[in-house]
Amino acid sequence: MASPLKLAVIPGDGTGPEVTAEALKVLAAIAKLEGFTYETTTFDWGGERYLKTGETLPAGGADELRKFDAIYLGAVGHPDVKPGILEKGLLLELRFQLDQYVNLRPVKLFPGVECPLVGKGPEHIDFVVVRENTEDMYAGIGGWLKKHTADEVATQTAVYTRKGCERVIRWAFDYTMKRNNPKGKMLTLVAKTNVLTYGHDLWWRTFQDVAKDYPEVKADYNHVDACCMWMVKNPEYYDVIVTTNMFGDIITDLGAMIQGGLGVASGGNINPDKGGVSMYEPMGGSAPKYTGQNVINPIAAIAAMSMLLEHSGQPKAGARVMDAIQKVTGTKMKSQNAGKMGYGTKEVGDLVIAHL
Amino acid sequence: MASPLKLAVIPGDGTGPEVTAEALKVLAAIAKLEGFTYETTTFDWGGERYLKTGETLPAGGADELRKFDAIYLGAVGHPDVKPGILEKGLLLELRFQLDQYVNLRPVKLFPGVECPLVGKGPEHIDFVVVRENTEDMYAGIGGWLKKHTADEVATQTAVYTRKGCERVIRWAFDYTMKRNNPKGKMLTLVAKTNVLTYGHDLWWRTFQDVAKDYPEVKADYNHVDACCMWMVKNPEYYDVIVTTNMFGDIITDLGAMIQGGLGVASGGNINPDKGGVSMYEPMGGSAPKYTGQNVINPIAAIAAMSMLLEHSGQPKAGARVMDAIQKVTGTKMKSQNAGKMGYGTKEVGDLVIAHL
Ligand SMILES: CC(C)[C@H](C(=O)O)[C@@H](O)C(=O)O
Ligand SMILES: CC(C)[C@H](C(=O)O)[C@@H](O)C(=O)O
Repeated sequence: MASPLKLAVIPGDGTGPEVTAEALKVLAAIAKLEGFTYETTTFDWGGERYLKTGETLPAGGADELRKFDAIYLGAVGHPDVKPGILEKGLLLELRFQLDQYVNLRPVKLFPGVECPLVGKGPEHIDFVVVRENTEDMYAGIGGWLKKHTADEVATQTAVYTRKGCERVIRWAFDYTMKRNNPKGKMLTLVAKTNVLTYGHDLWWRTFQDVAKDYPEVKADYNHVDACCMWMVKNPEYYDVIVTTNMFGDIITDLGAMIQGGLGVASGGNINPDKGGVSMYEPMGGSAPKYTGQNVINPIAAIAAMSMLLEHSGQPKAGARVMDAIQKVTGTKMKSQNAGKMGYGTKEVGDLVIAHL
Repeated sequence: MASPLKLAVIPGDGTGPEVTAEALKVLAAIAKLEGFTYETTTFDWGGERYLKTGETLPAGGADELRKFDAIYLGAVGHPDVKPGILEKGLLLELRFQLDQYVNLRPVKLFPGVECPLVGKGPEHIDFVVVRENTEDMYAGIGGWLKKHTADEVATQTAVYTRKGCERVIRWAFDYTMKRNNPKGKMLTLVAKTNVLTYGHDLWWRTFQDVAKDYPEVKADYNHVDACCMWMVKNPEYYDVIVTTNMFGDIITDLGAMIQGGLGVASGGNINPDKGGVSMYEPMGGSAPKYTGQNVINPIAAIAAMSMLLEHSGQPKAGARVMDAIQKVTGTKMKSQNAGKMGYGTKEVGDLVIAHL
């Protein structure tokens, strides 16, 4: 018998635990149907714990997580914790320590989900953003000269390495091959080569070099500003996008909006190397004002579980969950907004299970 | 009699001269109606000249422009010139040498213009982005270590100064006061303080400090990723935005798209200091494939002229041109896309004049 899938679960703050509960309910159901076993271990990390103990990622925390096959994160963020603390101390810390160098963000409009763009349906919005997740301005390198004076100068340095961009670009090309878009395989590099003439020159050269190994994939390029326009005007243009950490942060959130908002968008922080441990999460925050009311949308959280399964050796289970999600959004839910779904949080979870 | 308004005109490449001609036609008409005089001097800078002479901004070019009251730019960009050359050698060079530290981008959906967002009309899309225009990653500071090896490291440094952010933030607060939004005066700083903890800490502190001098203005903050979502979901939220050069580049193009595209969007590169010379331009490129066909949309170019007048001592003339533009988009034009306007380029110019 195969050994059980070992999951670390960080439900987090606010509505995080509620949506995590639905994702775990769906996991239980699909495991039974597909005949695999799993074990979960829960970690109480997040804002609540920080307020009690002053700890974000506890000492040895990342090592602890290395023992698992994958990590599931609900949402962290607490109104009493200063912005930046949990983001840097927990989320970014995990990405860096676990070297989760691929941030994978499918931008897919599910059937029945309201799209904010005129005339665009599920057939127009279905692409994937691969965001580099370990370098760039996220390095946290910078400083101040003459701080607090009228002559103050502040710097913030983006650092890129050949290794760092090559591995994510290669992964994106591989992903484009596997995705096998019937309209044609295309990988678009999104950067700003005409202004960031050092850092994005490295990206550009690396992209050209790696492209040679993938003659079947059209190697395309967009400036980041043009990409934002194009995502709104002509999202059907894209197949797969690969981009830097900073620009990826921006365009993935724009992507989340055109696919119907944070209630449906999920992402993976992936370390695809042997022994790498990846983390999957809904994109929405902890939405404290909706806590405990059974009104928050669990679709993104369930989609994150589907992604986790897809990338953790259970692709068939992942695909079945994804199918069920789309049946529920397409035939049942009135809206993807909290409190307007026509069902409660738990009922949406039940509906997905009923459609498995 | 007042001395004539002295304008430097850079028609540029591709369709640049065509749209510039319409803007100048409208200028001639409004000058007559409003009873002011002007003189224009044309500069042949752009891709064509670069291909002939190898020069982007000729030596002494910026000093030449300092003799004028304002600059009007059509569009530069030529298919035979490598991307980056004209952008850096001409556009950015002018912004820097003339210290045009305010990039002003009204995001306004004119009546009759198709909006790509569901359910949004002119009453929802009417805000202004003030982009810092001289610092940040646009400094061009960076380099490579071990270039062309597997161990290559590349850097690109964003540099910000207290003076640089203070002056544009102060200008944005002043502008918010003058704009006097009946829904309430609000200035939103768009940055990424939770990740760019050095550079954007300076922005944050400066913004808080300057805000104290404007108690009537609500000092608001958005992360750049959230701002992109919000611009699509809830653009009516915004009054005035102030942001960094790099993020401003991105959100102003997103703004151009939600206001109906590059055919209608215009901007100013403004040096508001005594003796400063500012440059106004349509946001669209030189669109070489439409050259000489009388199909390109001149609305953005005419709007850029309206903006020039507004900021060059002829606010009444500027406002009259803006009114006429909105009558033409609202009652005459079928579309804002090249070739689909229902009129030719010149006819649209004539229509604006007829509605002055
Ligand atoms: C919370 C924040 C640090 C993070 C980021 O900027 O990467 C978030 O916006 C994201 O996209 O996952
Ligand atoms: C052409 C380019 C250098 C420029 C910029 O990045 O500022 C353009 O995109 C703009 O927004 O005016």
